[in-house]
Parts: sequence; structure tokens; C-alpha cells
Amino acid sequence: MNITKLTAAADKLRENEPLVHCITNYVTATDTANILLSAGASPIMADDPAESAEITSAADALTINLGTISQSRIEAMINSIVAANAKQIPVVLDPVGVNASQLRRDAVSRILASGRVTIVRGNRSELSKLAGIASPSHGVDAAEGGISAENIARKAAERLGCICVLTGAVDVVTDGNRMVRVYNGVPMLKKITGAGCMTSALTAAFAAVAEPFAAAVLGTASMGIFGELAYYDGIGTGSLHTGIFDAAWGFCGRILSEKLKYEEC
Amino acid sequence: MNITKLTAAADKLRENEPLVHCITNYVTATDTANILLSAGASPIMADDPAESAEITSAADALTINLGTISQSRIEAMINSIVAANAKQIPVVLDPVGVNASQLRRDAVSRILASGRVTIVRGNRSELSKLAGIASPSHGVDAAEGGISAENIARKAAERLGCICVLTGAVDVVTDGNRMVRVYNGVPMLKKITGAGCMTSALTAAFAAVAEPFAAAVLGTASMGIFGELAYYDGIGTGSLHTGIFDAAWGFCGRILSEKLKYEEC
Amino acid sequence: MNITKLTAAADKLRENEPLVHCITNYVTATDTANILLSAGASPIMADDPAESAEITSAADALTINLGTISQSRIEAMINSIVAANAKQIPVVLDPVGVNASQLRRDAVSRILASGRVTIVRGNRSELSKLAGIASPSHGVDAAEGGISAENIARKAAERLGCICVLTGAVDVVTDGNRMVRVYNGVPMLKKITGAGCMTSALTAAFAAVAEPFAAAVLGTASMGIFGELAYYDGIGTGSLHTGIFDAAWGFCGRILSEKLKYEEC
Repeated sequence: MNITKLTAAADKLRENEPLVHCITNYVTATDTANILLSAGASPIMADDPAESAEITSAADALTINLGTISQSRIEAMINSIVAANAKQIPVVLDPVGVNASQLRRDAVSRILASGRVTIVRGNRSELSKLAGIASPSHGVDAAEGGISAENIARKAAERLGCICVLTGAVDVVTDGNRMVRVYNGVPMLKKITGAGCMTSALTAAFAAVAEPFAAAVLGTASMGIFGELAYYDGIGTGSLHTGIFDAAWGFCGRILSEKLKYEEC
Repeated sequence: MNITKLTAAADKLRENEPLVHCITNYVTATDTANILLSAGASPIMADDPAESAEITSAADALTINLGTISQSRIEAMINSIVAANAKQIPVVLDPVGVNASQLRRDAVSRILASGRVTIVRGNRSELSKLAGIASPSHGVDAAEGGISAENIARKAAERLGCICVLTGAVDVVTDGNRMVRVYNGVPMLKKITGAGCMTSALTAAFAAVAEPFAAAVLGTASMGIFGELAYYDGIGTGSLHTGIFDAAWGFCGRILSEKLKYEEC
Repeated sequence: MNITKLTAAADKLRENEPLVHCITNYVTATDTANILLSAGASPIMADDPAESAEITSAADALTINLGTISQSRIEAMINSIVAANAKQIPVVLDPVGVNASQLRRDAVSRILASGRVTIVRGNRSELSKLAGIASPSHGVDAAEGGISAENIARKAAERLGCICVLTGAVDVVTDGNRMVRVYNGVPMLKKITGAGCMTSALTAAFAAVAEPFAAAVLGTASMGIFGELAYYDGIGTGSLHTGIFDAAWGFCGRILSEKLKYEEC
């Protein structure tokens, strides 16, 4: 990774204001829109199958999120991934709770069969499922223990043929060959709904202004940095929630260069 | 009520992290997820009829909320209540605006005919309707005056054969025989959307780690305590909103024992 | 405009607590409900076609918002506008992203053919479309340059036969004859999702307690004032978001009279 390229991309996000089409869940849609706006991108939420392809065709990136999935939203996602591939814009898939139901497993299969995904971002449990590795599930949360995060992410990347980001205590980004660990973040981010969804949306936004591997590192690192900047001893989840948007608002290449903690391995 | 049992349950919530399946409205879903996370539980939102029973089968409690109801969400609720009964996990029903439309009245009838509900939590207007008592409605808000809250809740509990919680200036919890009044809370909580929905979700979470009557008291008392801890003279609704999550984050048995105000009658 | 009438309406909102039926998107529904509650109105969200007319019939105003539109929500809007016209309550239309897809253009056509709208509030791009003026679109955001905001709004008002509000750096309110410019607001409001949706909902609330032209001025001015009161040098988007609800909570006729900046032209 070239740090100069990464910081340039952080600044370019605010200059270019890429339009990010989000087909996402109603639990975290507000926060997803606000984190994109705060960091410099422009969100558009639209999930009706009758308009999703048209919306994607005008966008600079697409993010697909499986939270509160429905049959109608699955159709919208499939229409949009085809449109995104035709326009050659990046696609980020967030397989929320793919372990939790047959509907979600089938949805991921249909989506992956419909078009090419640029980046998949999930937790340990979700990426294990996509990698074909058995893993216990506790709802949409990550299970720990056993095979390493690096190996799960590498297997998923090889199997899916795309960049995979496994977020956890340490975040892992790999395309099957290259492997980067990102050390930014605070544990309390897990206690705010939508931290993962926001990371995926930020990744899509960065992928509109940088090459995909750099965007994957930037998406996970930026969310971690927002958490670090917002966090202080004794903070509660409500104030952390407010603080991450304040941190995103002040985000730029200079702050990234000061705060980014990663290593290639 | 045994105060030691109540405080133990408050601590157990954070230790056990019960998975609470929420079939709820899109207006308050974010706040509902965040209050559960802050207080120590783990939320999962899923409302497609094709997956709701499967999600419930992996959960420790179910909450059903009639806000922004749709035909599809009603089907999901019915599938989930059957699954919850089969697994013998607690079910909390929040009959949001049941007075406001025939669709909601029919939805409640169908849900109650489909399975057993452990606890119903609503305002004066909603519980009056379920108790078969005529009451004027002003949208989803509570109307005041006339028959006492205690009598409305007792009639509803007898008619429905479950614990009923009527929240208002004073909260009333009854199973038809036992009756507890909870005095926690601040009036300004009514000026934040979702205070009721969050109370119902917290009640479901507590019902996963305590017996139902104690959980009903804890659900309503904890939300009231969050409001008290967040409130100060001159606060606005935005800061109160942030503060209740901060308060939930710090919640534990010790704080409950210091703040709980109730009486058995 | 008579400033005494405007300040009286601001106070009347908190006294009357009008019930505002919102058929709106899931991205900004929480914030829309909370700003109405904070400013003194009572929101009810309901978007199933089977209940929307019944809900509207009990309400004091209706707001229809095209964000995250769906076929089902379009049917609900049509049912509700007919009910609103029958009851003679005000209807505010927010044509979110009407330039962005054929589905949204058709939805607006069907809605306008189904009943009378009292006020339309949109940005430059959206009102240009409704006025029949070609304009480039960048997702749901406003495009700048070319024909004046005043002329776009006047053409839209003439074409639609209703009051039109074009919000931007300066807000313009016109019924085709009268024209008012409102100068309240801060640029950062554009970086919070839902500022437009909240403005439309506030406009509907004011239309329940004041004549429509005054309500249109009040809706846009009040949101601008909330932003001004919340804003300080160095603030971030998260804190601005919290602050606008605090400002709405303290809003009254006296504050309006101190802060309102407008001119008739």
C-alpha cells in the first residue's frame, strides 16, 4: 500500500462527491446516509425493483446490504448488480446475517450468480459461510475461535474471486494474494448498530475514487478512525454514535495519514 | 417483587447477551437495536415471512411491534409467534396504534389467535382497546381520563390471559392478580419517538433472563431510569435522545437498585 | 406576510398538537417523527394501502414523501390524498428524487392526478422537473446554475396550481403571484440526510394551524432557524443533528420573531 495514494483518495472523496447507491436495511439506512454525507460522498437509497437499475446507472458505486432482506429487495439488488456491471462501477456486498436463514443464503447465491462483486465485507461468521467453512452463528454477530481471520478471508476471496474484508478486533483485507491487517477501531463500535453497514458503504464510496484494494483498506480504516476520534474514557454509546459523524465530518487525507495503523503481511 | 432478583436480572442481561428477534417498524428500528445493544442484549431485525420463523427459532426472545404494519409483516409475525411458542421463548406484543385502523385491529386479532403472548405493553388507548373498553384515540398517543390505568390493565390481562403493562405518567404492570406500579421516568420521554417501542424490546430482552413478571417491571423501569439519568433542567429532545443510550450503556444491577421506584398494590 | 400571524402559528403548533400523517421513506422517518414531536406536533407513520386512508381521515395534515418509494407506498399515497381532500386537510408533497427514475416521475403524475396538493416542497432539480424545465440531476441533490430559483418555483406553482417551495441557499415560496424569500439556514444542513424531509413535514404541521402560504414560509424558516441555533464554528454533522432537535424543542413564536429573515418581492 502506498500511503500517499491512500491519503489522496481520502481527499478525493470530498472533492468528487461520488453518488453511492445503497440498497440497504431500514435499521441502519439513516446512519449509512449520514456517514456518507459526513465523509463527503452523496448517498441515494432506492430499493424498488422497478427503479433500482435506473438509479444504479446514474451512480458512481453500488452497495448491497442483506439486513432486513425481502424478496422485493433481492430483486432490486439483482437488477442493480447487472446495471453496475454494465456501467463498470464498483459493487460492495455486505452479507448481513447470511448464516441466519435460508432466505439470506439463497439471496447471496442469486446475487453472486447475477453479476460480479468487487468487494465483500463481513464479520467472521458471515465470511466463514461464504468461504464454505463451518462456523457457529449467534444471530448477525461474529463468532470467535478456531481458524484464523486471515485464512477465512483468503479462502472467501479465492472462492468468490473478489476482495474480501473481514472486520473484527483486527480487520483483514485480502484479494487472495495480498493481505493487509488494519488495526484501527475501538471495541465499543460493536455496540452501535450499523458500524458494519457504514463500513461497507464507505468502502463503496472510496471504490468510486480509488482502486478497489485501496478502497477496501480505506473503508475499514476510516470507520475505525472515526471510532477512535469519537472515543474517550467513560463515553457511552449515545455519545459515541454522535461522535462518529463529527469525526467523519472532519476526515481528510491529513488525518488519515496521522491515524492509519496497518501492515502488509 | 424481590429487589435482589431484579438487580440480578439487570446484570444477567449483560452477561448472557440474549438474542432478541424484533419484528418492528422502520421509524424506531434503529433506536430499538441501539438500546438493546447498549443495555447488553443482541438484536436481530428480520421481517420477511420467508425467514421470520427460522430467525425466531435461533433467538432467546421475540418482540412484535405494530408500527408501520404491512400485510407482509403481519405474516412474518404470525410465523414467528408459532416458532416462539414451539421453542418456549417469551413473546412481547406492542400493539402500536391498534385503535387507529381496522388493519391493526385485525392484525392483533390474528396474532393473538395464532399463539400465546407472554407480555403486552401499550399506552392507555391501546390497552383500553384490547380490554374491550371504549376509549377515544388521538393517533398512536394515549388519551387520558375516565377509568383508572390499573383497571384497564387488569381487564386487558384477564381478557388476554397474559401480563399487561400500561405505560403512562405512572406505569402499571399486572397479570390480573398481582399489580405493581412503577414510578420511574420523565415526561419528556413522550416527546421522543420510540420510547414505547424501546420499552417493549427491553422487556423482551429481560424476559430472556428473568421470569416474565419481573421482566415486565424491569423493562418499563429501566427505560424510565434511562430517561431520569439523561434528563437535566433545560435539556432538549436531541440531547435526551443521545443521553438515554449513554444511560443504557452504564446500566447494571447496582444502578437499578439505587433508582428503582415501585410499589406492589 | 404578517409577522404576528406567523409567530402566533408557531405557538399554536405546540398548543394544538396537530396529528400529521406521514407517508415517507425509511431513511428519514425517525428524524421526521422526532422533529414533529420536538416542535409540538404529533406524527403518525402508516404506509399500507389497506389503512392509509383511514389514518389520514383521523389526521390534521398529510405529508407524502417519495424517498425509498415502492408500488405499495404509491397506492397508500393515492388512497390518502383522496381521503385528505375529502376531509379538506392540507397535503404537502415532497417529490424526492423525481428526476432520478421513471418510477418516481410516474408516481408524481399519478398522485397529482388523484387529488389536490396544497404545497410542494423540493430542491432546484426536483421543482425544475415539475415545472417542465430541463435540468441536470445528481441523484436526489440539487443542481445549480441557469434559470433563477424564483422563476422555477413560479413556473411550478403555475403549472401545478399550488404553493411551491424551492429550498436551496435561499428558500423561495410562491403561489405564482406572491413571492417570499427566506434567508434562514446554514449550509451544513445539506450534509444531514432528512433536512428536506423534515422541512416538508414541518410545513404540513404548520398548515394544520395556519393558512397554507404562511405555513410554507414557516416550514422552511423553522428548519433553517433550527440549523442556525444548533450551529457553531467547528461543529460536526453528528452534533448538528442532535442540536436541531434541541432547537426544535425550544422553538416558539418569540424565537421565530427574533430569528426570522425573509422578504416579500
